[in-house]
Parts: sequence; structure tokens; C-alpha cells
Amino acid sequence: MAKMTVSDPDGSASADNGLLSRRQWLQLGAGGAAATMVAPVWAAGDARLEPWRSGSGAPPSNYGDQPSLASLEREQISVHPLGPQAGSSSTPLQLLNGTITPNGLHFERHHSGIPKIDPSVHRLTIHGLVRRPLSFDYEALLRYPMISRVLFLECSGNSYRNTLETVLDETAGGLNGLISCAEWTGIPLHYLLDEAGLDESATWVVAEGADAAGMNRSVPLSLATSDALLALYQNGEPLRRSQGFPMRLLVPGCEGNLSVKWLRSLKVMNQPAHTREETSKYTDLQLDGNAWQFSLRMGVKSVITSPSGQMQLPEKGVFEITGLAWTGHGSVRRVEVSADGGRSWTDAVIQSEISEHKPVRFRIPWRWNGQPAVLQSRAVDSVSNVQPTRSQALQNVAPGFSYHYNGIQSWMVEASGRVSNVHG
Amino acid sequence: MAKMTVSDPDGSASADNGLLSRRQWLQLGAGGAAATMVAPVWAAGDARLEPWRSGSGAPPSNYGDQPSLASLEREQISVHPLGPQAGSSSTPLQLLNGTITPNGLHFERHHSGIPKIDPSVHRLTIHGLVRRPLSFDYEALLRYPMISRVLFLECSGNSYRNTLETVLDETAGGLNGLISCAEWTGIPLHYLLDEAGLDESATWVVAEGADAAGMNRSVPLSLATSDALLALYQNGEPLRRSQGFPMRLLVPGCEGNLSVKWLRSLKVMNQPAHTREETSKYTDLQLDGNAWQFSLRMGVKSVITSPSGQMQLPEKGVFEITGLAWTGHGSVRRVEVSADGGRSWTDAVIQSEISEHKPVRFRIPWRWNGQPAVLQSRAVDSVSNVQPTRSQALQNVAPGFSYHYNGIQSWMVEASGRVSNVHG
Repeated sequence: MAKMTVSDPDGSASADNGLLSRRQWLQLGAGGAAATMVAPVWAAGDARLEPWRSGSGAPPSNYGDQPSLASLEREQISVHPLGPQAGSSSTPLQLLNGTITPNGLHFERHHSGIPKIDPSVHRLTIHGLVRRPLSFDYEALLRYPMISRVLFLECSGNSYRNTLETVLDETAGGLNGLISCAEWTGIPLHYLLDEAGLDESATWVVAEGADAAGMNRSVPLSLATSDALLALYQNGEPLRRSQGFPMRLLVPGCEGNLSVKWLRSLKVMNQPAHTREETSKYTDLQLDGNAWQFSLRMGVKSVITSPSGQMQLPEKGVFEITGLAWTGHGSVRRVEVSADGGRSWTDAVIQSEISEHKPVRFRIPWRWNGQPAVLQSRAVDSVSNVQPTRSQALQNVAPGFSYHYNGIQSWMVEASGRVSNVHG
Repeated sequence: MAKMTVSDPDGSASADNGLLSRRQWLQLGAGGAAATMVAPVWAAGDARLEPWRSGSGAPPSNYGDQPSLASLEREQISVHPLGPQAGSSSTPLQLLNGTITPNGLHFERHHSGIPKIDPSVHRLTIHGLVRRPLSFDYEALLRYPMISRVLFLECSGNSYRNTLETVLDETAGGLNGLISCAEWTGIPLHYLLDEAGLDESATWVVAEGADAAGMNRSVPLSLATSDALLALYQNGEPLRRSQGFPMRLLVPGCEGNLSVKWLRSLKVMNQPAHTREETSKYTDLQLDGNAWQFSLRMGVKSVITSPSGQMQLPEKGVFEITGLAWTGHGSVRRVEVSADGGRSWTDAVIQSEISEHKPVRFRIPWRWNGQPAVLQSRAVDSVSNVQPTRSQALQNVAPGFSYHYNGIQSWMVEASGRVSNVHG
């Protein structure tokens, strides 16, 4: 086929191990042998092979059918053995494409399970260092001016399993799936804070959820009054209970834990509350014994979602390498991909519109020559942060559970076509 | 409250009947009485009122919980009495916010129901005026370079119930809900057509679905080779069966019927096929007896989704007027809102990033003074098409079922706060 028009047919001489520009890809004759010549039986159609064409299908429904692939589920559901309400579930990144995460597949991390809140009883109270404490019900909040933004949300502990010594043979979602993306719609938080009237001494806002744990976090006033949202809708629909219905805080670019679900109280203070979740947890212990506190913004990061862990390439030939990149600091400016374990890098195409705290989908065609290869991606953000290698990311971190890990993910493609996690 | 700082407290002197700029809205003191002063019981919390705080909630799950509002369903499910497989369901626009439609709420229009296709058996065949007919299986297609775009999809017959003489007291979704929006990911169709090698005489591509009806439509080659997609993912996940799993055509900006679901065949021709769906149906019969054929692009259009039909405003005060606007011709450039039945118009804020064939969310605060009011929105697109009034839109159309209707939607707010459909 058209593959013959390429001067370097098996890609062995390529400095970048098969990564292709759009022009090179087009020279291959599109898929480069991905399609097969048509078999006559298909031109005619054969009801024995296509039984679904022999009679009518299902009628319209009120909430749509289930996902079409049985395998399309959240994975890596890890819960506390004595209290399954404390746990998490991961987005199956390797089964998705584009940037939006469907609501049913958004990652979860609950400290005391998902409360079933009656929105007609629930109130959001703003109190503390304000001129007039206010209490809002759900119906009143629905009347406020809102904005919509496509934003990522990443758990501070995402990818921590790659910080362990042992290399885990897991999928992209199992390793890195505590990141999701949605179009969030809500009220700019400063509208509500302004209405309550901030005292001049105000510097922090302590947000508390209505779950049984009363999960609470201190938010610097600068974040609370800039682009924080009181989110009411996710991907168009009112929040799912698992994502904070009837309302949650959303602090763009920051660790997910700060975006308190089931928000019931905002207490304005002149210092942080030093809650359990910012002293015992969600701090970064360094090798020198000091711990970073309130290290809230998530670092620049990317993950190749295909090909990725536990996948099997059926044969050598052309595949699209694709993945997601995001940053808590501005926007993603560039994503580079390596197919030779980091020796050479080629710019991937950034698919999506670029805007602050919005993840991007990156893509680059790759011609696999059948030899072992290590695939990596490296993101750079608009303030020139560069995603570190695994060893750079762990350089100063005390051994053990690690927050804010953003090291480069490496996938080994074996000669057999099997893809697996490796420490690059 | 802060309302007193406004010189025209009840809005009666306002030329635009209460529509507010951002500055005016802020002067009202945010919600303008939407919030109530805090009651002490809430500062303390009361387990009798908040029983969900007295014990742990539900654990993480594999596909997320159901929507949090029992009312969140598709509506206006209309099916043929003898064959419910032929019918449609509408997106409940009035319950949503932002621009994305969750997959479970995307409108449906099926001619012979939803087939349950085995993706390992299904093939897409490209034949006709091509140098080499090709047949693609699902796995092969997953290897192709893809792109992701946020696009609207609108049924050609959307809003036809507003073309009837009788004014129907329905919701925004019931009247206009055959429009939805998703982030679609797929293969630019021209990659596949180029691989098959188009004959010089090729001018049309006839697309056929694998449903029992074998629904087929003729697509002009100019559309098929510009921005048409072979869509494989919707809002991140593989297509739902109700939206064409394993694959569908997607022709941005054109009537939904052209985006053939369950795509099995693309036949390249030097003329259109004149299928049932482009002769008997999906043509526009004019008053002079002529019918327009292949009038594929959807016109510029907008709908206020809140306040909208069957809603009840609880009291006078400030509300956000918000809705969706879209066009098949380029992008939406401007949306104006009227609160006095079209006598005066004020620019709404266009929320979303603007890109071709992507719907936008528009918003403007409105202070309702308790008097009857008629709310309307009017969109203008990047090639200066202006959304027509209802009578302008119906001017040359033969009575009866109408396609491509894009007249302005009018909502009457009565003094009681009841909102209902009217013919503006």
C-alpha cells in the first residue's frame, strides 16, 4: 500500500523512533495499512453477520442507555477495609478520548461517603469576619449570575503509586486516574463574599462540607475571591451526589481536596484553621524533615493514555499516541513526546482550545517498528514550568506517601506489543 | 438591603424593562435580596434538620450515581403508536446550565430503534467512485489520528411545535429540546476518503446506517472532505448505542439527520442518491409550491432556557436570564435579550469560548418588577445572519410540518410569576 512511498519503510533510521509529523503521516497513505481491502460480502450486507439489521431496535428512553462498552467503569476503587465510605475511585483514562470526563466516570475521593442531602433543607452559611452573616438556600442560589468553565480537578494524591519503589503493572487510569475534567457552572464566589461584606482583617476562608466527616479546608482569600466558584452544575446537569450535590466549592488549579463537596459553611478568618486535612494530611514532607503546608496548586503534568499500561498492540504499524496534559499554573503551552525513553523529543499537536486550568488533549502519530520502545510525554506550562522526570520529582521528597507527584509517566512497549508501566 | 443604593428601585423607569449590566447588577448588592439573613440554628448545625451529617454516606462506585434530581430526564418522548422504535426524545434544556449536554440526556431521533451492534463484527465500507474500496473494523479505526470538537447537533425538525397555530404550554426542552451539545472525538473523514482514493468525478457521498431502516443520506463532497468526522467518542466516552455506537458520521452545523448513526457504508457518487430522507422528508416546502432540497445547514438560533415555560418565579427581584445560541453558519457573534417583547434589546454576555459550530451560553441579569413581561433572545452569527421573528421565519413556508424553523422563542412572565410559551 501507500507505505511504499516512504523512503524509510520500517522507521529504523528515525532519530525519534517513529514519531511522525502530520506531513509524514499523510505520506504513509493515511492509516498505513490500518484498513483492509474490502471483502465482497460487506458490500452486499449479510444478515447472518449483522443480525441487528433484521429488525427494529430499542425505542428512545428517559435517561439514555448505559455505556456501550461493558468495560467502561471507574477502576482502582480503593476503600478503607473497615469503612468503605472512606475511599476513592479512578477515571479509566485509557478508555476515554477528548478532554471531557463523563459525570459517571469522574474520579471520587470521599472521607465519609456520599451524603444524600435534601436540597430544600440544605443551607450555605457565610459567617466569621463579615459585616452580615448570610444563609443561602439552593433555590436562591439558582437565581445568581453564573459562569461556566472547563476545568480539571486532580486529587493531591494522584499517581502516588508511581512514587513507590515497586513498579506496578497497571492501566493509565489505575495509576493516574484521580484526574478528571468537566464543564463546571456556578457562581463566582466573590459575589457571595462581597454580599456578606468582608472585614478588612479577612485573609482566609474555611470551607466545610455537610458530609458526616465535616471535611474542612482553609482557602487563602486571594484564591477565594479570584476564580473560585460555588459550583452547581457539572457537564450541564446539576451536580451528582458523588460530586457534591447540591453545591460544592471549586478552586481551579488546586488540589481536589480544597474544592470541598456538599459545601455548607464558609467561615471568614484572619488565619488558616489548621484542620486535620492541612496538618496531618495534604502536606509535603521533605527529606530535610520540614513539611510544606498549603502547597495547593497542582504542578504541570501529562499522561499518555494510549498506548498505555496493559494494552496490546496487535502488530507493527502506525498508531496515534495521545494523552492529557494539565497544570495548576496558568495553561499548558507545549507537550513533547518521546518514543525512545527520553533521548529525543518531538512536539505533539495540542488539540483543544487553550485556556487557564483547562486540560488539553495532545496527539502525535507514531509508526511502531516492532522493536521495544519507551513512550513518554512531557508538558510545559505558560509560566515555563517543565514536567520533571520521576527521579527529579522525588528528589527531595521523604519516602512514603507523596502528594503533588507530577513525574513523567513511562510506558514500555515490548516486542510482543504488550505495554506496561516502567520507571523511566 | 443594598437594593436601596439603586436610584430606580422597582425598575419601572427602565427602557429595557429591568435588564442589567454587570455594573448595575453589582450595585444591587449581589443577589439583591436573594439571600436571607442567617438564622442562628444554622451556625451551630442541627442533626434533626441535617440527618445526612449523623452517619457515613455511600461508598465510591463503578459508574457513578444517578442524577441527583429525580426530574432530570429526557422529555417529550414522542414515538409512533404502532412502532415506538420510530420516535424522538428531547433534552430538558431548562434543567441544564453551561453548554455540554450529558450523554444520558442527549436528544434522540431514531427511525428504526437503537440496534445493538457487535463492534467486532461491524465494518465501515468505503466504495463507489474510489480507486480502492476499503473496509475498516473498529479496532483499526481506533488507531487513526483523531480530533476533538465541541459541536451542537440539532434535529432539522426542532421547535416545529412552535410553527403550529396553537400555542403549546410546554417547557423549553419540550418545545426546543432536539438540540444538544457534546465534545465529539473522531477521525477527520477526509483521511479515510483519501486513503480510498476519490475518483475525479466524485461529488457526493451517500452515508448509510446499520439500523434496520438502513437510514441513508447524501452528503455533498465539499462537506464530507472539509470538517465531517467519523465520530467514535462523545464527551470522552465511546459513543452510547443511542448515539451510534460503534461509529457515526458527524457533519458539523448541518441538520442532525445528515450525521448518520451506526455508519456502515460510504458510497462515493457523482450525484445525490435522492433517498427517502431527502425527497419525502427533510425538504422545505414553500408557499409557491416549490420545495428546497439539501437545505442542510441549520440557521442561527437561540432559546432562553431560564426563566422559561412552566417555571414559576417565586417573587419579584433579580434573576439571571440565560440560554443557548448556535448557528450552522460559522459561529455565534452576538446574542441580544429583550424583556419587553422585542421593543428594546440589550446585549447579553456570551459565556463560552467562541468557535465554529459550537453553541454558546448567554447570560444577563434581570430585575423583575412584578409586572407582566415577555422575554426573548435573538442571535446573530459571524456571517451576519440574524435570528428571525416567528412570523418572519414562517413567511414563505407552506402550512404544516416545518423543518429548519429558527424563529425567536417568546416567554410570557405573568404577574403571578408563571412563565409560559407565547407566539411573539
